[in-house]
Amino acid sequence: MTINRQWIFDHNPEAQITPDVFRWTETALPNLHPGDVLVRNRVLSLDPANRAWMRGRTYREQVLPGQVMHGFTVSEVVDSTVEGFAVGDIVETMGGWQDYAALPAAQLTKRDGTVALEHLIGVYSITGLTAYFGLFDVGQVRPGDTVLISAAAGAVGSIAGQLARIAGARVVGIAGGPEKCAWLTDTLRFDAAVDYKAEDVGEAIRAACPAGVDLYFDNVGGQILDHALRAMNQNGRIVCCGAVANYDIGGQPFVSPLLPGVLVSKRLRMEGFIVLDHLAKRATAEDRLRQWIASGALHATTDISDGLATAPEALIRLLQGGNRGKMAVRLP
Amino acid sequence: MTINRQWIFDHNPEAQITPDVFRWTETALPNLHPGDVLVRNRVLSLDPANRAWMRGRTYREQVLPGQVMHGFTVSEVVDSTVEGFAVGDIVETMGGWQDYAALPAAQLTKRDGTVALEHLIGVYSITGLTAYFGLFDVGQVRPGDTVLISAAAGAVGSIAGQLARIAGARVVGIAGGPEKCAWLTDTLRFDAAVDYKAEDVGEAIRAACPAGVDLYFDNVGGQILDHALRAMNQNGRIVCCGAVANYDIGGQPFVSPLLPGVLVSKRLRMEGFIVLDHLAKRATAEDRLRQWIASGALHATTDISDGLATAPEALIRLLQGGNRGKMAVRLP
Repeated sequence: MTINRQWIFDHNPEAQITPDVFRWTETALPNLHPGDVLVRNRVLSLDPANRAWMRGRTYREQVLPGQVMHGFTVSEVVDSTVEGFAVGDIVETMGGWQDYAALPAAQLTKRDGTVALEHLIGVYSITGLTAYFGLFDVGQVRPGDTVLISAAAGAVGSIAGQLARIAGARVVGIAGGPEKCAWLTDTLRFDAAVDYKAEDVGEAIRAACPAGVDLYFDNVGGQILDHALRAMNQNGRIVCCGAVANYDIGGQPFVSPLLPGVLVSKRLRMEGFIVLDHLAKRATAEDRLRQWIASGALHATTDISDGLATAPEALIRLLQGGNRGKMAVRLP
Repeated sequence: MTINRQWIFDHNPEAQITPDVFRWTETALPNLHPGDVLVRNRVLSLDPANRAWMRGRTYREQVLPGQVMHGFTVSEVVDSTVEGFAVGDIVETMGGWQDYAALPAAQLTKRDGTVALEHLIGVYSITGLTAYFGLFDVGQVRPGDTVLISAAAGAVGSIAGQLARIAGARVVGIAGGPEKCAWLTDTLRFDAAVDYKAEDVGEAIRAACPAGVDLYFDNVGGQILDHALRAMNQNGRIVCCGAVANYDIGGQPFVSPLLPGVLVSKRLRMEGFIVLDHLAKRATAEDRLRQWIASGALHATTDISDGLATAPEALIRLLQGGNRGKMAVRLP
């Protein structure tokens, strides 16, 4: 009998998550009902939003104790009751933290099986598309803009910064530690990097952005957002992509005391978005990402953890800023 | 000798302003240099922003101790060195808290002297234009929207709410006290009013906006903004017009702990503006405001205090929410 190994979300942590928030279990394969497709998860995406889902309803339902932990996956069809999905097809779906899932065909999107799986979970998936639509559609980046990006060494930030550079902007990334900062400037060709762990962040942002900030791509919220608000130019734009500073904590988060007055005095636009609303334009976006990858203009980095068993510690590492680029778990 | 009576801004208050923040003085008329126009102030506008100017640099310079208190005025030309400005002309300018000011002609905008002065300081001036551009250009109100407005009995709020009603929206105003709330619904024909002094504000907003809030016109920030964020619909817009809750206080203001995460999960756009950026379209806006006033669709209320001596107490009353409609001081 084939075993389905699963991580169950056990309980909602009061502050930072710890490994005991997840419980390992092994069960039988799910039954396949008409209309369902059985998939084997090949790569599991780890995203800061995973932590937000535990806190309550966001743009999607809350993950509840007792459920298999929710997660975005690239998966392979191993059995199918539905025409159009054949054994061996590669799909993206919410396969969850487990080996196998039986899912209605409507929840699957077929992908090109010839593309490397880590690219399918990263640059050609929600990660790359979030950077693309956030920067171009929401942020409306323009050549000559100074673009500031938080969590710049993360999955979305590292792509968003490179896309801003491609668009002719001056790009400044904020990341934790000298290695990440050097990686941003040396490998990803950011114009400057700010180490939020080492420097007076406000001072360092001012030094790195002598002409002020026109566009701030915010993945973190909290104290860094406060610094960015102080550095914003008149008529600046803030793309709200995530607020990871507020996800993995107990108690009340820090919120900039400048809000909302500074939005008035500097005429700022602050706008949140969810990539799922923009997927109608996905084909164009992916096509361009592919061209930039092919030309070497865009560098897509993945931080892969091996084996389903490593998922909890990998998520904890992600939330503590320990990753570089797209973080994912490869299932054997 | 003609005397110029003035209110000098004496010192920056640590918390709520008190009358001793201003110092009365009497001086000689200013000298008129070539290029200057001498005006006598006829109506002095009182605005929550006056208090923000004391706290630091905003969209304009800070008012500094020892200066004549800054203020927007409708004034009459009494002497001129400049062609195009004749004695008797009515102008708008930053005449300040005094009887007379000598100002460069470039700082004056000529107005129609046949219109009632209280309308020139109110609906046809920054007040009415702020409501107009905030609601239509920034907020992009649409028929069927539920529009929530804070400080709805104030100068900008009372006009913004009526404009939203004219645009086919359902309009809910937030104001302090049963009299103001009754005035909003009975005289200004808002669809509903929420008394923030009497009710559980969050509960009352939910009851008054059963379909949620599509557009929030925010004049106050603080706790009310937090309630509004909870009531916003997906893809809602927040027009940041002012943050009076944060102006007249000591210490740190309350800021919603939902920021910025809720902007992401609900895909909200939050945008600040200053009316001065929109004046290129002023003629069209004023023309429409005039037609709505003439047809009776728009009701412009002024709360006039008599005599320059009353300016400090009138500003204090404004900041405590004691006014109804546009607050101004008439100079004899």
